[in-house]
Amino acid sequence: MHRFLWISAHPDPQSLTASLRRDAVKHLADGGHEVVESDLYAMGWDPVLSDADLGPVEPGPLVARQKAATLGGTLSEDIRIEQDKLRAADTVMLQFPLWWYGVPAIMKGWFDRVLTSGFAFWLRDPATGRVRKYGDGGLVGRRVLTVVAAGDRETALGARGISGHVEDVLWPVLHGTVHYTGMEPLRPHLIASSDRVDGTSYDAERARLVARLDGLDGESPIPFRTLASGEYDEQSRLRDEHSPDRTGLAIHRTTTSPT
Amino acid sequence: MHRFLWISAHPDPQSLTASLRRDAVKHLADGGHEVVESDLYAMGWDPVLSDADLGPVEPGPLVARQKAATLGGTLSEDIRIEQDKLRAADTVMLQFPLWWYGVPAIMKGWFDRVLTSGFAFWLRDPATGRVRKYGDGGLVGRRVLTVVAAGDRETALGARGISGHVEDVLWPVLHGTVHYTGMEPLRPHLIASSDRVDGTSYDAERARLVARLDGLDGESPIPFRTLASGEYDEQSRLRDEHSPDRTGLAIHRTTTSPT
Repeated sequence: MHRFLWISAHPDPQSLTASLRRDAVKHLADGGHEVVESDLYAMGWDPVLSDADLGPVEPGPLVARQKAATLGGTLSEDIRIEQDKLRAADTVMLQFPLWWYGVPAIMKGWFDRVLTSGFAFWLRDPATGRVRKYGDGGLVGRRVLTVVAAGDRETALGARGISGHVEDVLWPVLHGTVHYTGMEPLRPHLIASSDRVDGTSYDAERARLVARLDGLDGESPIPFRTLASGEYDEQSRLRDEHSPDRTGLAIHRTTTSPT
Repeated sequence: MHRFLWISAHPDPQSLTASLRRDAVKHLADGGHEVVESDLYAMGWDPVLSDADLGPVEPGPLVARQKAATLGGTLSEDIRIEQDKLRAADTVMLQFPLWWYGVPAIMKGWFDRVLTSGFAFWLRDPATGRVRKYGDGGLVGRRVLTVVAAGDRETALGARGISGHVEDVLWPVLHGTVHYTGMEPLRPHLIASSDRVDGTSYDAERARLVARLDGLDGESPIPFRTLASGEYDEQSRLRDEHSPDRTGLAIHRTTTSPT
């Protein structure tokens, strides 16, 4: 039994994204899993981080004020509710249509506002005094599956596709957000050519997503290198002995990239 | 003389981002350039794309409804104002603090809502019938400079840095948005360790940005491959003879990547 937090972002309740979410959530619940939803459009989620998030805190850099509000319990209520949902979950779903090769603004603003300093990041290991990030952080113990509907055909988001491999396109989410805060990113579930999914192919897409969910326990996360491994130097650069003479995002994995 | 559109996104008018914008805009205006601003927080920009953007249009997929609203003139007024600013500009500045390795939600929502289908993309070349994208599109003739303030030190965003090279991190913006719509992305102007910029180092950062702006005419854009070049096959994959046997984002450049 898993405790899912299913976060989704699509304005249209008749969309492919919304239909797949409804069917998949029902499947999970029928299977005995706990599923909590954050349907950001339906909730009217406010994505704009502002001083109103923080309550009364001392002036200073934003990241410091955000930490003070987090530790002082003055974050606005909508943020605290989402943080509680995240605390309770062991599996986080991020489901969205790919807009401008990233998440819709309403979901980006969920990251910006909910993943606060002092909650998700900017925490120190009391033993070493080091900042916990990239494989460690406030959200350890959770796995994350991205479910991405893209207008591009699958090959365009493949290893030599013009749009970039989907795992490189989503680097800011998979590595810069999920891995950064200590969560484990699974390989994205890509629904390509999403504008062409019709009644017939919908059934196949639903079956493919459900099969993916049923097999999650057997999956390994993307093997991003961790900061704690010591593979990076004091200037945050990958040491020469790892992936020597190479550059590019693939060097930050412990095994050869599929891209 | 250039016509600048300076788009910026920071909630704090006392921030490094806001201070640099004010000083740089003044410098440009003093130099005889035209500068129009979109200070997204100050404008109270709504970043959430919704049906309210579109006016009365026929049901259908979002991208088709958005195109109908664009061509039919029923887009909401705040969107039309921004599109007019973009039409009038030859140089677009995108200035933002790097949040979760991307643009703040308020700026992502400017992309989501302003760069509509039928305006920025989903246009066909009447001669060939092909979709104009990746080096061509509705926004040709404009250059884009990103000005990015990041808490990371510079080496963390360098060629072997743990966060990924800044040009790879910003791939969804530089390639997936700017290049996709036919605009020309310049190399990002990175202000690293931005939390440590103080009174003294601020003067140096201001001078570095002003020098960058003064030298823009002599710069070449990032040499991303174009769709029209024929270097991609019918499945949108880079043909075998280009960057053979390689993968990763760097293969999509016509010259060796600096990353």
